[in-house]
Amino acid sequence: MEKKDFLYEGKAKQIYSTDDENYVIIHYKDDATAGNGEKKGSIKDKGIINNQITALLFTRLEEKGIRTHFKEKLNDRDQLCEKVKIFPLEVIVRNIITGSMSKRLGVKEGTKPENTILEICYKNDEYGDPLINDHHAVALGLATYDELKKIYEITLKINDFLKELFDKEGIILVDFKIEFGKNSKGEILLADEITPDTCRLWDKETGKKLDKDRFRQDLGGIEEAYIEILKRLEA
Amino acid sequence: MEKKDFLYEGKAKQIYSTDDENYVIIHYKDDATAGNGEKKGSIKDKGIINNQITALLFTRLEEKGIRTHFKEKLNDRDQLCEKVKIFPLEVIVRNIITGSMSKRLGVKEGTKPENTILEICYKNDEYGDPLINDHHAVALGLATYDELKKIYEITLKINDFLKELFDKEGIILVDFKIEFGKNSKGEILLADEITPDTCRLWDKETGKKLDKDRFRQDLGGIEEAYIEILKRLEA
Repeated sequence: MEKKDFLYEGKAKQIYSTDDENYVIIHYKDDATAGNGEKKGSIKDKGIINNQITALLFTRLEEKGIRTHFKEKLNDRDQLCEKVKIFPLEVIVRNIITGSMSKRLGVKEGTKPENTILEICYKNDEYGDPLINDHHAVALGLATYDELKKIYEITLKINDFLKELFDKEGIILVDFKIEFGKNSKGEILLADEITPDTCRLWDKETGKKLDKDRFRQDLGGIEEAYIEILKRLEA
Repeated sequence: MEKKDFLYEGKAKQIYSTDDENYVIIHYKDDATAGNGEKKGSIKDKGIINNQITALLFTRLEEKGIRTHFKEKLNDRDQLCEKVKIFPLEVIVRNIITGSMSKRLGVKEGTKPENTILEICYKNDEYGDPLINDHHAVALGLATYDELKKIYEITLKINDFLKELFDKEGIILVDFKIEFGKNSKGEILLADEITPDTCRLWDKETGKKLDKDRFRQDLGGIEEAYIEILKRLEA
């Protein structure tokens, strides 16, 4: 299938319509942002690597019975996906406490909680993607209580699967952000991407950060980190 | 019973031990703060009025089968209460959206959601009493999932009861903040206070604010508003 009309541009991807109204083509860019768009730059070949990583992970998740929007990798930067209406929610899973949760609540970076921490944020740049709870989401019309329950169930399954998968490759899945959408049949599908842009990934041996924190914190070796993740997953 | 040792001073109350280790005396002050202590002042006789309002409301809640820490009003400013270990949580109920929720999420002031909005904030001045969710509360050791479930159940009952009670007096219960504690037997009790300091109360006819927003927003007529609430409740 081929790109038809340009539909939407996000921070890291573009979306195009296709001849089939139930499918879109997602194009992965090299653009990188951090701090709600305050820091802007680009990471060489990131789009190519992230297209590959998402294709690989979404395929494995599908094999485990988790429904995703992903259909097929078309070329270096493009993938064919089922068209979904995205819930305007960032669903975050934290296995280790760091980042915004550390800062907001004064918890020491790297603390490992006994429970798995789920969060939802309202996807809204103007208000800085604020943390919300289920009642807020329902009041704002972002999702119903039932949809949220399903989203959490799927999210926990995804976390279990990804934690083990990364662990086998010597990587700690610290936290990650995912998004969900509803297709034309009203089914809830995992959408967006799962990449070093959207996960915190630490090397189990050295603790080295292999994710976008290298960009956020100017640690250098960004491309190499992304390639390292892809290599280990493909191994 | 009489005050023994000074135990703790909050923004609006002092707590004293008594001869019985299971009881404390809570002294209501006139001090008023807003914006996480940024604005400071005092409201004439507020302590006297709020002691009376809390005594009245907690007594009615007890009659409805809702367990509270309140035992007895001792004098103008003091009340005898069961000693509890406070959960470091502000439990907030919103029947109408205003205040911090409006600001954080860009919702028009006065919006009436179809659902009842519950929130918990981590009682921590240094971090500005941040909004949290259940997973955060558990990870921080503030409460267990079971305790939170019980707290929400009791909170919804309190909201139903108070909404009706205020409605009968021509007042809209817009939102309120409550706190819970555990007594020596491990029972969860409603604690702290329910007053115009901790509720938003609007006159049903005129929309006039009869609560601490008059202090926060320098609207004048603060004492009169608090007295008005007490009068209507006593009517």
